[in-house]
Order: sequence, then C-alpha cells, then structure tokens
Amino acid sequence: MKMGEQLYEGKAKKVFATDDPACYIVAYKDDATAFNGLKKGTITGKGVVNNRMSNLLFRYLEDCGIPTHFVEELDDRTTVVRRVTIVPLEVIVRNIAAGSFCKRYGAVEGMDLKNPTVEFSYKNDELGDPLINTSHATALGLATQQTIDDITDMTLRINEALKAYFAKVGIILVDFKLEFGITPEGKLILADEISPDTCRLWDATTRQKLDKDRFRQDLGGVEGAYQEVYHRLGLDKA
Amino acid sequence: MKMGEQLYEGKAKKVFATDDPACYIVAYKDDATAFNGLKKGTITGKGVVNNRMSNLLFRYLEDCGIPTHFVEELDDRTTVVRRVTIVPLEVIVRNIAAGSFCKRYGAVEGMDLKNPTVEFSYKNDELGDPLINTSHATALGLATQQTIDDITDMTLRINEALKAYFAKVGIILVDFKLEFGITPEGKLILADEISPDTCRLWDATTRQKLDKDRFRQDLGGVEGAYQEVYHRLGLDKA
Repeated sequence: MKMGEQLYEGKAKKVFATDDPACYIVAYKDDATAFNGLKKGTITGKGVVNNRMSNLLFRYLEDCGIPTHFVEELDDRTTVVRRVTIVPLEVIVRNIAAGSFCKRYGAVEGMDLKNPTVEFSYKNDELGDPLINTSHATALGLATQQTIDDITDMTLRINEALKAYFAKVGIILVDFKLEFGITPEGKLILADEISPDTCRLWDATTRQKLDKDRFRQDLGGVEGAYQEVYHRLGLDKA
Repeated sequence: MKMGEQLYEGKAKKVFATDDPACYIVAYKDDATAFNGLKKGTITGKGVVNNRMSNLLFRYLEDCGIPTHFVEELDDRTTVVRRVTIVPLEVIVRNIAAGSFCKRYGAVEGMDLKNPTVEFSYKNDELGDPLINTSHATALGLATQQTIDDITDMTLRINEALKAYFAKVGIILVDFKLEFGITPEGKLILADEISPDTCRLWDATTRQKLDKDRFRQDLGGVEGAYQEVYHRLGLDKA
C-alpha cells in the first residue's frame, strides 16, 4: 500500500490517499484540542495509544458482527482504512451523566442514567456541532431515516460490547462518540476512532478519569492516563 | 364554578383553583415576555385573543379526536380547564425553518423542511428550556417511552389538523409549541394554549408575520397582527 497525497488534516489525525481507491491511510497525531478548538496542546504518545487502541477495538467489534473501516495497521501511528463518506452526524452514547449532558440538563456528574442515551450532533464546526434530533436530521437531508435507524441499532450493540470489554480491565465506559461512514457500495460501517480522546473512561474502583477530560479540565497526569488505558488493554505487551 | 385561590402566575396566564377538584380556571393576561423573560412588554388585547383562539382550536381538535383540557369558556379572558400534571417537556413542531432552528443549524428562515420535525425541550427556566431527545428524557425519568410515543403520535395528528385549519383562512402554520398533561386518571391530554404566542403564523400570500415574532423582533404592528388572526378565525363575529 503506497501513501499518496494528504487529503485532510483534522485536529488529531491526517488522512492520505493510497494507490488503492477503496482505501485511505490515517496517521494519528499527538495534537490535542478541546472546546471546539479553543484549547490546544500536545499529549505525548497519544497518537500511538489512539491508533493501536482503535484498531484493537475495531477488530473486537468486527468479531461481534459490527462492520468497521479497519483494514490493516501499518505501524504504531498509521492504519489503512476503507474509504467512506462520513455521515455528518456525530453519535454520542451515554451510560453515566458527565460533560455537556450535566451542563445542559443540570444533572450531577456520575449519576447513573435509567437507560443508555443515544444523541446526535450535527458535524459542523462553525455551528459548534449542535445537538440535533432524528426528525431534524431527516428534515435537513443529513441522513435518511433508514440510515439513522441502522446507526442507532449498531450504536446500542457497540455500547453493550464495549462496556463488557472495558469492564474486564476495570474501566467504566461513561460515554463515547462514534462516527459512521458509507462505503462506495452503500454499506454503513463504523469509522473514525475509539480512544481516550473520544470516550470517557473511569477507573472502576477509584472513578479516576483516564481520558481527555484530564486535558480539558487541567487535571494533570494526562499522558499517564492514556498510558494506563494502553496498559490495561494489554497493548504495551502486544 | 367558583374561582378559588390563585395557584400559579406564569408569564402570560394565571391559574386558579375551583370548587371542583378536577378543574382549574385559567386567566389570560396581556403581559408578553420573550428570550426566556429577558424582554418584557404588554400586548393590549392579547389575553382575549389567546383565550378565545385556544378554545376555538381545542374544540376543533376535540372534533378531530384529540383529547384536550378544555372544559368551558367563562368569558373573554377566562376558561375552565381540566386539572392535569404537566409533562415537563415542551413539544415544538416545525413545518418551515424559523427561529432557533435557523440559528442552531444554519438554516435560512422560510426554508421548507423535508418532513415536519417534532422536538422536545426540557421545561426548566433555569437551564433555558434546553433541547432534549427522547432517550435523554427517559434516562432522566422526565417521561416514559410510552408517554413520549403517545405525545409524538398526537402531535403529528395535531399538526396536520391545524395546518389544514389555518390554510383555510390564508395562514401558514410555520411552527408551534404544545404542552401535554396527565389527568388524575392517568390519561394524556393536550393542555396549555394554541395562540400567536405559541405559534409562528405567516400570511399565506405575503408571508407577513402574524405572531409574537413581531414583538420579539420589534417589527411593529404587534396588536394588529393578533387582531388579524382573531379576525381571520372569525372570532370577532362569534
């Protein structure tokens, strides 16, 4: 697989063309941003953690019957993925109240929710990725009802699979963000990444934060938290 | 029906107990507020328009098979309604992009939506009545999934019925807000009001605004717009 021209540089990743029109190469960076880009920094080693952790979890989810964009890990920071058109809806799943959910609804951080919630944000930096419901998304033509139903169904299955996986290594999956893409053949698959950048992960015993909230909230020990998750998942030995 | 003690004074209405424990009396005021109470004023005659218009539309919706809280109009400004516990979700239906929808999603005012949207706001002044989706509402215990499904179903039927009613008098129903209540017997019924305070109503030919946006946006002719709707609905002759 030959790396071609850079197609896109995001906050945490670069995407390159390859000599296979069905594939891209993703390169993970150590750059970190928060609050829609207002806060910027570097988390040393983050690119390696996020790349290898995402690939581990994508392979696990494939085994659980969830199609993903994962093709092949090239090295610690770069991976071949299937080319997709990203559905312009970020999907956020919550098991425990935290972050914007608490601010928005006056909930106390750490409160168990009566059911997992699935919410959509309209992927639009200028508008600040606003919360959107399914009737809005179809009304604006962002996705069809069928795509939204399929995403919701896959998302709830992914939540159950990931909760169980993290529980085995003493981590609570508080909430996380997913993105989905549509292949040139029209198939809906999981894309983007699953990492401490996109998940809230708490130690099951101490409820210590092991994710990007340490960076967002200046809690210190940011690199250590990413390495702890990497270690618990056995990636330092694999 | 004897009016008892005042139970509540809201932005646009007062609610009184009566000698029948199953009923309240609602008294409509001319007071107007906007932007979560930041803007205040008076719209002379508004109380009469909103009371009589709501009652007319509630009777019409009852004929369409929608149960409502309407019992009896006592005079131009006061009405007997059934006692309910209000579901803490405001229901907003949109047929055409306007207001907060445009700000939130970068849509142009007046754009036709591909489908009517139904959205919920968590009724909470302190939090600014934030947008909430159905999984959030059940997760926070604000309503059951059954109640939300029933509300959504009734709301879409109400939208079709009201669109047709307004179309006959040359008015486009752009969007509107509903509130639902649960009777002591556990029945879900439509409550609150349907008026130029709670609907965006545009003249079908000129697209002139005939609703509270004239007050919100300092467009002038506020009282005239309320009276025009009153006249079109034949209430000045009834």
